Amino acid sequence: MIDVTVKQAAELLKEQDDILILSHRSPDGDTTGSAHGLYLALVSLGKRVAFACQDDVPKDFKAFFPVIPQQDFKEKFIVTVDVADIRLLGTLEEKYTNRVNLSIDHHQSNKLFAEHNLVDGTAAAATLVIAEVVEAMGVTLSKEIATCLYLGLATDTGGFRFSNTNSKTLLAAAKFLDAGVDNGEINSVLFESKTKNRLALESHVIDALQYFYDDQCAVVILSKDLKEKYAVDDDDIGGLSSLPRQIAGVKVGITIKEKDGFCRVSVRTTKSVDASEICTIFGGGGHMRASGCSITGTPLEAMNQLVEVVGNLLK
Amino acid sequence: MIDVTVKQAAELLKEQDDILILSHRSPDGDTTGSAHGLYLALVSLGKRVAFACQDDVPKDFKAFFPVIPQQDFKEKFIVTVDVADIRLLGTLEEKYTNRVNLSIDHHQSNKLFAEHNLVDGTAAAATLVIAEVVEAMGVTLSKEIATCLYLGLATDTGGFRFSNTNSKTLLAAAKFLDAGVDNGEINSVLFESKTKNRLALESHVIDALQYFYDDQCAVVILSKDLKEKYAVDDDDIGGLSSLPRQIAGVKVGITIKEKDGFCRVSVRTTKSVDASEICTIFGGGGHMRASGCSITGTPLEAMNQLVEVVGNLLK
Repeated sequence: MIDVTVKQAAELLKEQDDILILSHRSPDGDTTGSAHGLYLALVSLGKRVAFACQDDVPKDFKAFFPVIPQQDFKEKFIVTVDVADIRLLGTLEEKYTNRVNLSIDHHQSNKLFAEHNLVDGTAAAATLVIAEVVEAMGVTLSKEIATCLYLGLATDTGGFRFSNTNSKTLLAAAKFLDAGVDNGEINSVLFESKTKNRLALESHVIDALQYFYDDQCAVVILSKDLKEKYAVDDDDIGGLSSLPRQIAGVKVGITIKEKDGFCRVSVRTTKSVDASEICTIFGGGGHMRASGCSITGTPLEAMNQLVEVVGNLLK
Repeated sequence: MIDVTVKQAAELLKEQDDILILSHRSPDGDTTGSAHGLYLALVSLGKRVAFACQDDVPKDFKAFFPVIPQQDFKEKFIVTVDVADIRLLGTLEEKYTNRVNLSIDHHQSNKLFAEHNLVDGTAAAATLVIAEVVEAMGVTLSKEIATCLYLGLATDTGGFRFSNTNSKTLLAAAKFLDAGVDNGEINSVLFESKTKNRLALESHVIDALQYFYDDQCAVVILSKDLKEKYAVDDDDIGGLSSLPRQIAGVKVGITIKEKDGFCRVSVRTTKSVDASEICTIFGGGGHMRASGCSITGTPLEAMNQLVEVVGNLLK
């Protein structure tokens, strides 16, 4: 369980062969971009490399990534990318617990579960740390590698709009573009395109918004039947949790997802309200501006309890 | 009517005093960011500077810009920023025709109407050209100047998501962030925040979408009463013209705005269809992927004609 530098991580990887790269469950652009970018870099050094993840790579991203063949060797070195906690390997956790040789990540909260840990909490995306390792290994940043890394960076910075975007982020992105990345196309897929069903769901959610306290609090309830009714997937529904908070004037945006006998709650706030304070009351937690919790009962019961707590905070 | 370099433009401005800066009508982030950034730079050099525009600065941006006092001097030197054609001064055109001393712009199509023209068609925003002029004048990039310039750049690149974003764009943005710009806050105002009414309008538009040719063409009709019904402004309605084209699988997205006795039509397409080909048939025109035209008659009549043309193109 030791911390390593970028250079040390690069040396480690260069010494190894038969490498397995692991991404976290419910994979996003950052974990898959990191894995595929690192894959290409290691293959260019002549190594055998495989990839595993509990879930499939999101289908929208596949066109930007190399196809990684099925693993046909016994792995000798295991690397996790963008995985803050071994539990995030999901169904692969049991198999790989205490076996991860190198963890490359950007979460400050990383549990340092690997033999060697390269964690840069200041990086906006794990792909930025991968980019440094790729460079330190002496691998040229090809268009293909840069595309994987750009995709992760664009995902984790909301296309460079979030406040985790700093000058270092933009300088790295500039390098990726210089390598030939088709950023317009990637951003269009990541941020512009919505399915007909997803749009219909959005319309439903907008119409179902409930406002409280002079529109300072907005709540939306996502009932269990929505997925079937609109033929959407969890990603589509998950993407809606930021919607209530995006409304001008709303300080507390709450999304309540109905489950069997309980509700999963997501709370997003503006600077003036602490979201984790709200969720801690219900046994949950998180960050100042984005937190979550679970509440037993129906969505309506959950909403009433939440709205009461919010009312006290807004006073 | 001569072209000047960045250095020559900077020298010209340094020699002058009592400068009036003009923005184009229906001002956006780029023309107002350029004007306010240049204003601050010139004031820091001890000059008297004023600003004029047919319309008010968008209210959302005001918090990021300096307050420019009413003009209390007779202007001796007139500069336009982000103005491709003197006609875009709107009601100010007549007063300033043949009187503009310097035009700083990034539109390839600039009509070169000024005495001196600094036009860089490769710049993603006019604020990037202003940034070069500011530097060439020897003015330090303060947080306040950088904020104005960043805002223009973020506007014209869709927050760095559009394909006009290249490595030069990102390097410039990195400089602005290093000067202390609160990019998270600006992007949140520019891109995240929507009014309750705007959201309700969006929901209406989504529900009103009509699909043709196996969902390859999507049309939305914006009737005259929408503005009143949803208490929204032209900006809110204008922002919806890209919505139909954003739907996955849609190759031709059409927005039809009802006017008195005619309709204003906006056509957006994916790579495979030429939008200007559609609009030229109706006496309009534009770019490959974004064009417009006007069609006499009701929205339904306009839609039927357009859909027929689109059908022939999609065959």
